[in-house]
Amino acid sequence: MAVEVGFTGAVLDRADRERNDPEALAAALGDWRARLLRLNGLDPELDGEGRLVWDSLADLAEGSQPLFLGYIDGRPHFVPLRLGERHGATRSPALFAMLSLMLPDQAGLYACARSLVDWHQRHGYCAVCGTATELFRGGWARRCPNCTAEHFPRTDPVVIMLAEHDGRALLGRQAAWPAGRYSALAGFVEVGESIEEAVTRETLEEAGVAVRDVRYIASQPWPFPSSLMIACIATADDDRITLDTHELEDAIWATRDEVRAALAGDPAARFVAPPRYAIAWSLLTAWVGSGADD
Amino acid sequence: MAVEVGFTGAVLDRADRERNDPEALAAALGDWRARLLRLNGLDPELDGEGRLVWDSLADLAEGSQPLFLGYIDGRPHFVPLRLGERHGATRSPALFAMLSLMLPDQAGLYACARSLVDWHQRHGYCAVCGTATELFRGGWARRCPNCTAEHFPRTDPVVIMLAEHDGRALLGRQAAWPAGRYSALAGFVEVGESIEEAVTRETLEEAGVAVRDVRYIASQPWPFPSSLMIACIATADDDRITLDTHELEDAIWATRDEVRAALAGDPAARFVAPPRYAIAWSLLTAWVGSGADD
Ligand SMILES: [Zn+2]
Ligand SMILES: [Zn+2]
Repeated sequence: MAVEVGFTGAVLDRADRERNDPEALAAALGDWRARLLRLNGLDPELDGEGRLVWDSLADLAEGSQPLFLGYIDGRPHFVPLRLGERHGATRSPALFAMLSLMLPDQAGLYACARSLVDWHQRHGYCAVCGTATELFRGGWARRCPNCTAEHFPRTDPVVIMLAEHDGRALLGRQAAWPAGRYSALAGFVEVGESIEEAVTRETLEEAGVAVRDVRYIASQPWPFPSSLMIACIATADDDRITLDTHELEDAIWATRDEVRAALAGDPAARFVAPPRYAIAWSLLTAWVGSGADD
Repeated sequence: MAVEVGFTGAVLDRADRERNDPEALAAALGDWRARLLRLNGLDPELDGEGRLVWDSLADLAEGSQPLFLGYIDGRPHFVPLRLGERHGATRSPALFAMLSLMLPDQAGLYACARSLVDWHQRHGYCAVCGTATELFRGGWARRCPNCTAEHFPRTDPVVIMLAEHDGRALLGRQAAWPAGRYSALAGFVEVGESIEEAVTRETLEEAGVAVRDVRYIASQPWPFPSSLMIACIATADDDRITLDTHELEDAIWATRDEVRAALAGDPAARFVAPPRYAIAWSLLTAWVGSGADD
């Protein structure tokens, strides 16, 4: 994969064995070099070079718990979980701008921290029995004091895909998106289906387009709240569109030249491309670079 | 992908729009042709040809709720959720034998039904506020009557991978496995990481082997309880193994001939291969068929 993918490349050593090791966790917490991510709600702060701003553990607010992210250059890194706070999955307007400025490896680190905090904030009770749960494994699990069930952060796989037909790619538009924006279709992988089956089902459901020969392209974590985006390209034998208007406002077949113009930000382009940090950008970039088979 | 993958190929129309349509759901429930999966706990029953056994909706036991799977050949299909019952993620010994007899498309359908029932049984309470939740969307969600949060079935992405070095593939063995069994390494994809990053991290953690150039091979739903298995091959520059004995009892580098012998069930093979319905079998089969780049 030569194409750039946002939210990847974080140089974090997750040191997952230390999560179960109270002595190692205590040592990390006692390390004077330990860093604590600065968050405003769920938003980060950035320095002038697109890097996350960190505080020291001494800055941990009262009523907050440190979640152990892992090590960067041998230094333990934490993110604060403020108890009782709840932000939900909505992104603040300021965050959009920050995501465009953030270096990709920094975005990957932020994705990990944000998804982890958000999961704790929305999973304070045991789904098995309803009892309030306790933080566990350095912040990578919660445990129920009543039924002993362990709960782990959730990662929801999502397929995002281009159907291609006769040198054109299928793009859709949701009503809530910024004006002119078109992007790849997407949907959650459900229980009991493979990635390939989810791509086929979603393309048929949303646009009425049957596809075959699903090819995997790339993947990305997407921390809103905690998806694993799985980007694919598939072949359609027919270009007739039957729109599911509950999901999409419009769908179009775009040529490589049209996609190229959109990716370049050309004001005369047929549509507005997704932002560079989204894997849809990477998928479209990979597709315009892969003309050989048409 | 020419290689066979277990638990895929179910001919189920999930009709996901009908899940939100009370009239359509009522019509499906009232359809005299509707089928209800026969379950003993979480185990299915099979006929003599490896097909699932179905009852009619009239056979729904008292205290059970029907979950809507979708349509097969235009007939609505349901699976019973017995309230108050809880089986956990362990598989019964009888199930292992049944999985080997089940046709792949039937296994895919069973995977969907089993994961759905199991999720309901372990998610009866709201993780946000601890209140008992109610079935929703035909069985594809639960809703909290207190805080209105909606909860959806969980699908956990898992990477399963072969590191390859100099014509050999890295296999591991867990202490709890049947005697002689070796298989691909595997681990959950965590929040904030891509598939490629998870493959790299897990191979390094479990066997101390650094890999690069991760290639996607295939995927499979795995209903114990509800994973999405993502099979990959990656390149290792060094064959030194540093075992994480918490995870693995042993790890070996196997040649294509050794893997071929194991897949063929040769009693003289160096190891016992994973069962055919597991994606590890598909991954090993794909790898022995891909000798060109060595
Ligand atoms: Zn509990
Ligand atoms: Zn609630």
